[in-house]
Amino acid sequence: MSDQELMRRALQLAERGRGYVEPNPLVGAVIVREGAIVGEGWHPKYGQDHAEIVALKQAGELAQGSTLYVTLEPCCHQGKTPPCTEAVIRAGIKRVVAAMADPFAAVAGKGFQKLRETGIETQSGLLEKEARFLNRPYLKRLRTDKPYIHAKWAMSLDGKIATSTGESKWITGEIARQKVHHYRGLMDGIITGRGTLLSDDPLLTARPPGPRTPTRIVLSQGKTELPTNCQLLKSVQWAPVLLAVHQDYLFRHEAWRNAGAELLGYQSLEDFLKKLAERGMTNIWLEAGTSLLGSFLDSREIDEVHCFIAPRIIGGKHAHGPISGIGIAHLPEAMKCDKTTSELLGEDFYIRGWMDS
Amino acid sequence: MSDQELMRRALQLAERGRGYVEPNPLVGAVIVREGAIVGEGWHPKYGQDHAEIVALKQAGELAQGSTLYVTLEPCCHQGKTPPCTEAVIRAGIKRVVAAMADPFAAVAGKGFQKLRETGIETQSGLLEKEARFLNRPYLKRLRTDKPYIHAKWAMSLDGKIATSTGESKWITGEIARQKVHHYRGLMDGIITGRGTLLSDDPLLTARPPGPRTPTRIVLSQGKTELPTNCQLLKSVQWAPVLLAVHQDYLFRHEAWRNAGAELLGYQSLEDFLKKLAERGMTNIWLEAGTSLLGSFLDSREIDEVHCFIAPRIIGGKHAHGPISGIGIAHLPEAMKCDKTTSELLGEDFYIRGWMDS
Repeated sequence: MSDQELMRRALQLAERGRGYVEPNPLVGAVIVREGAIVGEGWHPKYGQDHAEIVALKQAGELAQGSTLYVTLEPCCHQGKTPPCTEAVIRAGIKRVVAAMADPFAAVAGKGFQKLRETGIETQSGLLEKEARFLNRPYLKRLRTDKPYIHAKWAMSLDGKIATSTGESKWITGEIARQKVHHYRGLMDGIITGRGTLLSDDPLLTARPPGPRTPTRIVLSQGKTELPTNCQLLKSVQWAPVLLAVHQDYLFRHEAWRNAGAELLGYQSLEDFLKKLAERGMTNIWLEAGTSLLGSFLDSREIDEVHCFIAPRIIGGKHAHGPISGIGIAHLPEAMKCDKTTSELLGEDFYIRGWMDS
Repeated sequence: MSDQELMRRALQLAERGRGYVEPNPLVGAVIVREGAIVGEGWHPKYGQDHAEIVALKQAGELAQGSTLYVTLEPCCHQGKTPPCTEAVIRAGIKRVVAAMADPFAAVAGKGFQKLRETGIETQSGLLEKEARFLNRPYLKRLRTDKPYIHAKWAMSLDGKIATSTGESKWITGEIARQKVHHYRGLMDGIITGRGTLLSDDPLLTARPPGPRTPTRIVLSQGKTELPTNCQLLKSVQWAPVLLAVHQDYLFRHEAWRNAGAELLGYQSLEDFLKKLAERGMTNIWLEAGTSLLGSFLDSREIDEVHCFIAPRIIGGKHAHGPISGIGIAHLPEAMKCDKTTSELLGEDFYIRGWMDS
């Protein structure tokens, strides 16, 4: 197998940790000795062994003199687990091929340096583009101190999320909704707005549950009180609820705190997002109405879109599209996906798009 | 080959006439003698031989005692060409298997009757659903005296056809636009509205040309005059231009008549469409703005949709979606596609949908 094939294998292994490892990055590793794979591993879960350690344990004595292919620079700091560089050195690895350096401040090239200092040959940049794609959410959080935003909407073939009378349940079918639940179960948080809370009274849990239990976040200006007899608060023992309101209006929402929600005051959307990232939130699912999606678009805070399209026509001058806000004035400035995939889910189309970043 | 396989072959042959035969139906025929195909044909062009005649000519003497598989009941009337039933009888065909009866008044079961009267065994209904699908436009025109409407739009992933400042050129890419030109070249007419005429000054020809040259139709209330210095009128020698306005305002549009356009007065959308069908128009391409598409939706006059989706996000409360009008009030009443196909055209998605009829 070529270097590239081995790295591709490591990337595939890394993917298995999605939803389990965050806020850590996804990492996969393959150890090769004399052309044969002697160890493989991936970081399975936050707090557990890193990919290199899993692969080294599998390789055992065979690691001696071998090459380690790893999707991210090995860490050199004591975190939840000891530095991987030490284990790599101790195992007698001769050469380390990484897809990319880890921009995390405690590593950031120092991992490679530690290895080189003991005579290990290091190389970085093999399938770097793919490795960056794998860890888009992690990399965005490190780069911006904000979480990675997945915007979701379901619309008709003519771009309506509800009829002119506001009916939106259900535009898409059961299989599309299952996909939504799958993604919810990978997220750190699900954001919705005041409008959706009042009109749909959603539960916003992942059913069935996924690897993680997302915090259900209501993002509202907070000028007026919100009802406490909602599904979110009734189910607060199953999944946390966070009410985020402008800090000036925090005092109006003690009823939510009393009902078990956590309150968070913010100054701006930017500030709100930074506060989520400070809590270690990496992936946020934005499942909201047209205004809130508009605010995120206007702040260019959409990183990935999950667009479900039903084969129906709704029409209507007063029927909403998925994203309002101010919007883009000139076409060349429209936000572009630099990659998309599409899938048929029952009768519905599902287009996933990764925004140019 | 089974009866079904032979009929499927006949349906495939019929399809080759699309764009050439209208207002006639698409028809394909296969002649089988002792298990071997001895003749095949399709109606190639309006005014030329029907499918049965083409197949019979190929079979020659071998038609004697054979079975004819044909996608539509053979005609028994003198039209542009002599009745097919006579040729079938004369050739000594023993059995005729048709996919469906021809609802055209001059035939409508009388073709089968003529054949049976001379002792030919007849059968109808094999792959009838597929045969009806093949000729949806023809069947709609016969059933309703109105042409079949293909609604086309290009939108962003968030359902916008233009930015909030009205920019719409180009949302989708070159390959999607080529597809549009392909369809234009199959149509009897292309409808656009006053708004598109004024904002885009479109040419509305098929480039490169297809099997037919569609009449370019501007559908307007007609209360105010329209500019004559437009691309449509400048190119009137290449493709006809029809200006349809409410009959009360016909008198205001002599300038267009003088510039080479034909004028058509109508009383209602229904009346307008019937007048197009009276001219033998079967397929109409509706390439218009949000209001005119809304009028067609509100009248439930959309038979097929061609939706091109660009991987971009535009947003904006004031940016238009493809279809306004009154729209659908309640979700269960939304117009449903009973069949869809999808295709990737460069970076764009193309969803084609056939509305439940």
